[in-house]
Amino acid sequence: MRPHNDTLLRALTRQPTEYTPIWLMRQAGRYLPEYNATRRRAGSFLALAKSPALATEVTLQPVERYPLDAAILFSDILTVPDAMGLGLYFADGEGPRFERPVRTEADVSRLAAPDPQLSLGYVLDAVRESRRALAGRIPLIGFSGSPFTLACYMVEGGATDDFRAIKTMLYARPDLLHRLLAVNAQAVADYLNAQIEAGAQVVMIFDTWGGVLADGAYQRFSLAYMREVVQRLAPSHDGERVPSIVFTKGGGPWLEEIAAIGCDAVGLDWTVNLGAARARIGGRCALQGNLDPMALFGGEAVVRAEATRLLDTFGNPRNPDGTWAGHVFNLGHGLSQHTPPEAVAVLVDAVHDYSRRLRAQS
Amino acid sequence: MRPHNDTLLRALTRQPTEYTPIWLMRQAGRYLPEYNATRRRAGSFLALAKSPALATEVTLQPVERYPLDAAILFSDILTVPDAMGLGLYFADGEGPRFERPVRTEADVSRLAAPDPQLSLGYVLDAVRESRRALAGRIPLIGFSGSPFTLACYMVEGGATDDFRAIKTMLYARPDLLHRLLAVNAQAVADYLNAQIEAGAQVVMIFDTWGGVLADGAYQRFSLAYMREVVQRLAPSHDGERVPSIVFTKGGGPWLEEIAAIGCDAVGLDWTVNLGAARARIGGRCALQGNLDPMALFGGEAVVRAEATRLLDTFGNPRNPDGTWAGHVFNLGHGLSQHTPPEAVAVLVDAVHDYSRRLRAQS
Repeated sequence: MRPHNDTLLRALTRQPTEYTPIWLMRQAGRYLPEYNATRRRAGSFLALAKSPALATEVTLQPVERYPLDAAILFSDILTVPDAMGLGLYFADGEGPRFERPVRTEADVSRLAAPDPQLSLGYVLDAVRESRRALAGRIPLIGFSGSPFTLACYMVEGGATDDFRAIKTMLYARPDLLHRLLAVNAQAVADYLNAQIEAGAQVVMIFDTWGGVLADGAYQRFSLAYMREVVQRLAPSHDGERVPSIVFTKGGGPWLEEIAAIGCDAVGLDWTVNLGAARARIGGRCALQGNLDPMALFGGEAVVRAEATRLLDTFGNPRNPDGTWAGHVFNLGHGLSQHTPPEAVAVLVDAVHDYSRRLRAQS
Repeated sequence: MRPHNDTLLRALTRQPTEYTPIWLMRQAGRYLPEYNATRRRAGSFLALAKSPALATEVTLQPVERYPLDAAILFSDILTVPDAMGLGLYFADGEGPRFERPVRTEADVSRLAAPDPQLSLGYVLDAVRESRRALAGRIPLIGFSGSPFTLACYMVEGGATDDFRAIKTMLYARPDLLHRLLAVNAQAVADYLNAQIEAGAQVVMIFDTWGGVLADGAYQRFSLAYMREVVQRLAPSHDGERVPSIVFTKGGGPWLEEIAAIGCDAVGLDWTVNLGAARARIGGRCALQGNLDPMALFGGEAVVRAEATRLLDTFGNPRNPDGTWAGHVFNLGHGLSQHTPPEAVAVLVDAVHDYSRRLRAQS
């Protein structure tokens, strides 16, 4: 069923919209006091992510507070490798880690794409509960890490500065890494399709680490497997099209190639000029992005000015020939946990208000 | 006096060369056992950097071991803010930190460009000693951090994931950051000119962090101040031209703008396609880069294959019209401390050997 506010779905598929829709990466998170309260009740981040009821609660929190045009499922990017049995845990003050990183040929041989119904049921339950809680107001976005980004965590076993373990595998044993990525591509496709089946109305692939790859390696080790995922996605569910968004942080050099893998929209980090990106790929894909999350620390006038500047840089989404370009306003990366919640209210208002006026102008 | 091997100088100024010259960022460093021995003798990294005799010793180490086409002065990127009185120190296991970071209007008002002769004499002595030790064999490269990159350390006070302190200043108090950057630009220009005066035959500006800026902010807060530095540089010394190299890590989106600030060469990280970069700016500037440092972990055959692939991607530096494009082979960032020293020998040999053959082919 089409949501009451389907502006996001129209922008992603380059249909006319009355204003530029906005949602924010990591919109459900630590900058919100209500999130921190729920997390305290859950006891830990993983307990929160694994409880469908609590995950639904935090998924809904930002959309209760702000007139956002989408909710995004609250979940962790590493649910899939966790379901593969690698033993996800969070060390105090550090990021996620795996008890059993994937390093050897034997490690890779043991990997298999998990059946989402069996081992990721808690995510699918959270999708269903979030859909019910949203009650058709706005669309729900499901997501996964990209095959390569998941592989980074799986091979490194935790945070890294130089990606030495995975890049050593890439350069010294590319065959092994390709086997690992093939499993991941299958797993991510199955996982996203299960989310679609459970009710996700948009899906997004987060390629957080593809941008650390060299030109050439990016295409072979990250983009090729995202193409595989996108091509296996169910294009529609219950008669409604399910648009897909692909976001490689640092992917500016490869926008044309990303736009060619069959996704509906391409996410942009803040280093890319939105007007230049529209000129490069706006005829094939919608664009999503690309405010520097730190602009939200500049105070109300700066937030409004930056929103206006980005909307002007994209320009009127109506093309001279009457077709539409698609723009979904977002950040170029996740919201900082230190963001003042008022700044988000200002941003959402500025984007809605100015983008309506921009359409009227020309 | 022109060095005996001036291949680097010719490549940087787009003159004919018999082969592609190579040097490597961080070529004097922890991957070399002889470096670690000298550092142990010095007692600490800072003691090493501040001793002209020991800095000269480690500057020469890689060029004694490998037939590199340049030496780069061993020094720290943070000598300039240290000379401003911010109190540089290295905490165990962490990166560099400042005792007195620059946060307030009063902090900024206290800043002044140091006189390199008075407070950076140890660097200038190391330049003079290194020139003597090189005895005219190959050119010596001097360097500085960019005004913005120095500002990152000065404002953050140490390592950061999100650049929140400096970006908050950028968005909330751009006037303050501009004042700080104006001081830094003056300081960096004075510092590089003093290095030239002392004997540096090439100068390089390392803009390690410019790539974390949003499009638009990069131009105003990093590039504009590098332009100022480049325009204040002494273009020649003792009758010899002193080429300048500007390297913004993550600067791929802005290559045309970087190439327009008056530098001779533009450094490229590994995300940029070297052939595409040549097409974009090869008519205005030489290019330097851009092997992924982690390719050196792939074993000898991979190192040779990657060198060949990059040289092929750039193509024959002789243009069809008889003019020359310039390419200096390098990494896209510094050598990892874990690099096997043999891999560097293989890389240097592969670049020299294959680039000679490439010139003969066409």
